[in-house]
Amino acid sequence: MKISIVEIGKTDSEYLRTGIEHYNSLTGRMVRLETVTLPDIKKRGSLPQDEQKRIEGEKILSQVKPGDLLILLDECGTKYDSITFASYLGSLMNRSLKRVVFVIGGPYGFSEEVYNAAAAMVSLSPMTFSHQLVRLLFAEQLFRALTLIRGIPYHNA
Amino acid sequence: MKISIVEIGKTDSEYLRTGIEHYNSLTGRMVRLETVTLPDIKKRGSLPQDEQKRIEGEKILSQVKPGDLLILLDECGTKYDSITFASYLGSLMNRSLKRVVFVIGGPYGFSEEVYNAAAAMVSLSPMTFSHQLVRLLFAEQLFRALTLIRGIPYHNA
Repeated sequence: MKISIVEIGKTDSEYLRTGIEHYNSLTGRMVRLETVTLPDIKKRGSLPQDEQKRIEGEKILSQVKPGDLLILLDECGTKYDSITFASYLGSLMNRSLKRVVFVIGGPYGFSEEVYNAAAAMVSLSPMTFSHQLVRLLFAEQLFRALTLIRGIPYHNA
Repeated sequence: MKISIVEIGKTDSEYLRTGIEHYNSLTGRMVRLETVTLPDIKKRGSLPQDEQKRIEGEKILSQVKPGDLLILLDECGTKYDSITFASYLGSLMNRSLKRVVFVIGGPYGFSEEVYNAAAAMVSLSPMTFSHQLVRLLFAEQLFRALTLIRGIPYHNA
């Protein structure tokens, strides 16, 4: 099973890029991992939120292929702790899926079309974090989940 | 009201230090903020977890002065979203407290003595994140809470 992380717009801060690359490189030793960074919306500031979400939605859905399982990172998603998230990820890996696509949305969440296409939603925290910081949180949590699945000591270290 | 963040051991990763300093410098424009980094335990690896927690606990409690309100960041703490956390912080700021001390523990949580001395516990997420990454999460969330209290646009940006 391949894991894709889809995000919109480059990660602006060098320090976040460093952290994300650190964890994704460790994760990449355990699974096939790719990050798809979709180009950010041009002149975002001049567009209403709904229009931004609609355009982002089209970009996101253009990445989804038949057989993909689409999972949104969303504050309203299922609340897992790290152990149950690892168990959820493990169950996906046992389903002989071709690809699981985790999507990190923009600042305003997703369009209806994206919510409708998603198989599941995962919440990293009830708190809101900057959507670029969420990329680092998810990178760490994905790595943590895989170490838990593989029984590699990390979770309490 | 002064806000102190107490943590054990230096932040190892340069990228995390950069992010933490970024948010704390913004927060420091709105409140009196200090970070107290206690020296890490020597030869930590050779000590049982309970002994590590006991030594950490003594270091933490040595920082607490009469009149301080001690709040632990702990996975078992109260689950706030960003709005309710801001409201909680705002209520503390209205209580004419001298100082609120937020403590970020080590990898194994806190000793009984620290739990007993604490006025409250706050959870940033049901998920476990590296205790050094938690420092960045908390720095962002504290900044976010203060922008919400002050009505500064950030929360949806």
